[in-house]
Amino acid sequence: MKTLLIVAHGSRRESSNEEVRELTARVSDNASLAVDEVVVAFLEFASPSISTAMNNCLAKGADEVVVLPYFLSAGNHVVEDIPRAANAVLEQWPEKGVTILPHIGANVAMAQLISGSC
Amino acid sequence: MKTLLIVAHGSRRESSNEEVRELTARVSDNASLAVDEVVVAFLEFASPSISTAMNNCLAKGADEVVVLPYFLSAGNHVVEDIPRAANAVLEQWPEKGVTILPHIGANVAMAQLISGSC
Repeated sequence: MKTLLIVAHGSRRESSNEEVRELTARVSDNASLAVDEVVVAFLEFASPSISTAMNNCLAKGADEVVVLPYFLSAGNHVVEDIPRAANAVLEQWPEKGVTILPHIGANVAMAQLISGSC
Repeated sequence: MKTLLIVAHGSRRESSNEEVRELTARVSDNASLAVDEVVVAFLEFASPSISTAMNNCLAKGADEVVVLPYFLSAGNHVVEDIPRAANAVLEQWPEKGVTILPHIGANVAMAQLISGSC
């Protein structure tokens, strides 16, 4: 079983966190998805944390967690904090796997998404 | 003449700012684009500012600036800072127009972009 974990920064503004939760639900509704479930985690200001979310998924039977940093550019959170948090959880589950995807801003389709906005 | 202004937060990490500049160049290369030019501005930590970028475009002959907040969620920067900065510039150019698009995280295609990542 494979889980997609969307990791967002998190905001003091609860409506921003809710926006990411709703997006996660929309991704989860996509029938052609290559994973079995989609969950969200936040680095700061909102729950669940990466640790809580990953442990939940792994305890429920996920064999692999695919982590998508929902960030537009590769700052410290993307380069250091997210991999460190994910790998720390994985140390407790040596038989499981984690894949950390490039942050969403690095997706080659982002230019197309922007072009279609205007 | 119509200009797309991509407004990013800006980072102390220059490689993050460069990433947004490169993305802007890729958007600009899109032949089917509905605008005449694409430029970038930053709220903090990088240049040009919204004011400088918009004034440059308008002085060069743009009649309308379409502002795309390159943010994943609707925090204060999206809700208040970007519209305020754009409207302040427009007060100096009463014959010109500005359209502020929803932030990129609100684009309905974002769920599809995420789904395609994994």
